[in-house]
Amino acid sequence: MPFDYLPPIFRPSDSKIVLLVMDGLGGLPIEEGGPTELEAARTPNMDRLAKEGMLGQTIPIRPGITPGSGPAHLALFGYDPIRYEIGRGVLESVGVGLKVNPGDVAVRGNFCTLDEEGNISDRRAGRIPSDESAPLVERLQGIQLPGVETEVRQVKEYRFAMVMRGEGLDPDIEDTDPQRTGVPPLPIEANSPAAEKTAQLFGQWYAKARELLTDQPKANGMTLRGFATDPNLPNYQDSYGVRAACVSVYPMYKGVASLVGMDVIAFEGESPHDEFAALSRVWPDYDFFFVHIKKTDSKGEDGDFEGKAKIIEGVDQALPQLLGLKPDVLIVTGDHSTPARLRTHSWHPVPYLFWAPATVRPDDQPKFGERACARGGLGTFPALDTMPLALAHAGRLEKFGA
Amino acid sequence: MPFDYLPPIFRPSDSKIVLLVMDGLGGLPIEEGGPTELEAARTPNMDRLAKEGMLGQTIPIRPGITPGSGPAHLALFGYDPIRYEIGRGVLESVGVGLKVNPGDVAVRGNFCTLDEEGNISDRRAGRIPSDESAPLVERLQGIQLPGVETEVRQVKEYRFAMVMRGEGLDPDIEDTDPQRTGVPPLPIEANSPAAEKTAQLFGQWYAKARELLTDQPKANGMTLRGFATDPNLPNYQDSYGVRAACVSVYPMYKGVASLVGMDVIAFEGESPHDEFAALSRVWPDYDFFFVHIKKTDSKGEDGDFEGKAKIIEGVDQALPQLLGLKPDVLIVTGDHSTPARLRTHSWHPVPYLFWAPATVRPDDQPKFGERACARGGLGTFPALDTMPLALAHAGRLEKFGA
Repeated sequence: MPFDYLPPIFRPSDSKIVLLVMDGLGGLPIEEGGPTELEAARTPNMDRLAKEGMLGQTIPIRPGITPGSGPAHLALFGYDPIRYEIGRGVLESVGVGLKVNPGDVAVRGNFCTLDEEGNISDRRAGRIPSDESAPLVERLQGIQLPGVETEVRQVKEYRFAMVMRGEGLDPDIEDTDPQRTGVPPLPIEANSPAAEKTAQLFGQWYAKARELLTDQPKANGMTLRGFATDPNLPNYQDSYGVRAACVSVYPMYKGVASLVGMDVIAFEGESPHDEFAALSRVWPDYDFFFVHIKKTDSKGEDGDFEGKAKIIEGVDQALPQLLGLKPDVLIVTGDHSTPARLRTHSWHPVPYLFWAPATVRPDDQPKFGERACARGGLGTFPALDTMPLALAHAGRLEKFGA
Repeated sequence: MPFDYLPPIFRPSDSKIVLLVMDGLGGLPIEEGGPTELEAARTPNMDRLAKEGMLGQTIPIRPGITPGSGPAHLALFGYDPIRYEIGRGVLESVGVGLKVNPGDVAVRGNFCTLDEEGNISDRRAGRIPSDESAPLVERLQGIQLPGVETEVRQVKEYRFAMVMRGEGLDPDIEDTDPQRTGVPPLPIEANSPAAEKTAQLFGQWYAKARELLTDQPKANGMTLRGFATDPNLPNYQDSYGVRAACVSVYPMYKGVASLVGMDVIAFEGESPHDEFAALSRVWPDYDFFFVHIKKTDSKGEDGDFEGKAKIIEGVDQALPQLLGLKPDVLIVTGDHSTPARLRTHSWHPVPYLFWAPATVRPDDQPKFGERACARGGLGTFPALDTMPLALAHAGRLEKFGA
């Protein structure tokens, strides 16, 4: 359980909590003294919420640590990524929408180039473009093995993910990537007797895959890494006493949400409006709503400062639709920073807006932005604190001790 | 030991530290944009201390956790309440002034109503008023058992506390409250062989108690809960190298202070003036003084915003008396928040004023209040850090490492 001391003090309530995550929200100025992306964006609705609520900034995982998307979301959900590890094979698989259930074995695959002696000459198959690797993944999807089911899906370029499903599988298998060229891929070997059978099955699969790729000039081999199974994370409802729903366009975030036991809501479209509409439809059925906006991060990774600010403005414009539902607690934040200036995820603290009209202590910050958040009443705190704070303000926790 | 790294670096000193706790100090505005109770109060003395010293805000236990009074004070004393648990029977007993020594067994009692078949018809004996239950507690106090001593004291209404003292007692006994009506109280049963004898003694006591209550229409039975003994907390002087005194009007706080090994100072009266006078009298005999003001919390629980502000003003007016003693370190804070608006304890951070003329780094906050504290130089930090900070500013700690 992420917080052992919470379940004994759960209090029943029909309050509603919304966690609105703009991926990679945190930014940096692109000119001296200038605004960040969030500060540059026109966000009258968020500014009103900032004024009525409290600001702060979060440390996503640990100070100085730049989070990947999986760990960053785990942290927001209250599962310390240093303690709760999701195997890389699982993260890659759920990231492309593959289901990983307990007992399944998931793995990441890299196409590589093998020379005539079977030694690796290019560990990334010449960074084969996605449209060339897609039909190869199709071929691999056709492989049949006795007694187990396999599912293969493209990630991008030379990368794919794979899940094996069946009885008695065990992921305790060594990576086959030798991490250098001039040598063959390592054999698929079990680290423990329980995984022998699984290693053999992957070996059979690999042999068939090699045959299917013999005609390929670049992607004629592959390495497999990060064998892992469902991380068996404590269930969200057990951990926090809420029925939780995930509204997200991208598979990765749906995947992480489903690993903690949230229900993933299906819907059409991909605008903030579409996401909020989906949320409205299931509003009566859940207590906690995780809503994920992807494009802030994508624009940040593109180095598109203006574009990122525009995405934030789009979310702000759609916000009244969400506020119309009258949530008791609304948190607007990011999972990490992706400053357009750096074109990548970063370790910087993440701006955090906490709004709960009945119980917040106002901190006189009139605008949502990094500088205001650094001065906000919530201070600088771990993203991990999100759920206990949300539950408290939602009236869902009793007093601790007499 | 709460902080294993402190005792090796203790430095002898004759400096004096005062921890002034206004119970439930933290508050909330009652109107939009308005002040909190502390911000509304006229506090020229505290404002001067704020200007000369540093402000901050504390998380009493963990973010989002609303503390009971026992855990909140343990935290201020440096004992993490998640790690150091005081059994409910002990907390209730020390709360009404019963001593609980190592080896004693303390328990909470609830009068209940039993029907002719001996089933519980009302778990709280019709919430019998205190003046009706007081003589019943008197009767129970008369019960004699061979080889042990028992002490019973009223808490209020249907609640009482009881301590059994003697050789070879063990608190590993199950609660007898079935948590519902229509069934009899559960038998008094040991959870382990070591507690068999104790369970039998409580059983004998209960049989005699039942006889003494047969004439009662409402309170003719009882349930017993939270069997516990002295939590054996590390001693304050060993943990911090200070001789510590407690000045408090209410038994609960004296009880928690005595559980960590503070001396409880006896005195007459109950105003801040009386408390500071008591402190003056023992000033030469101790290094550390915990002074507890109760009524800020009581007024908060009454929903009396003005009344709470007035209590704070009364403390401020008496403060020069304390400052005249020239403490080296003075901390003015609360154990938790009790906003009049919520009429109950809450999880909000607690305003914190740290004054130590020789060593503080000023933070340009001119007034003691929640908003100023949220911007203060100490930041937002766990209440648990209080003692190390106090010892440092009191010149009582050597350098750590070479």
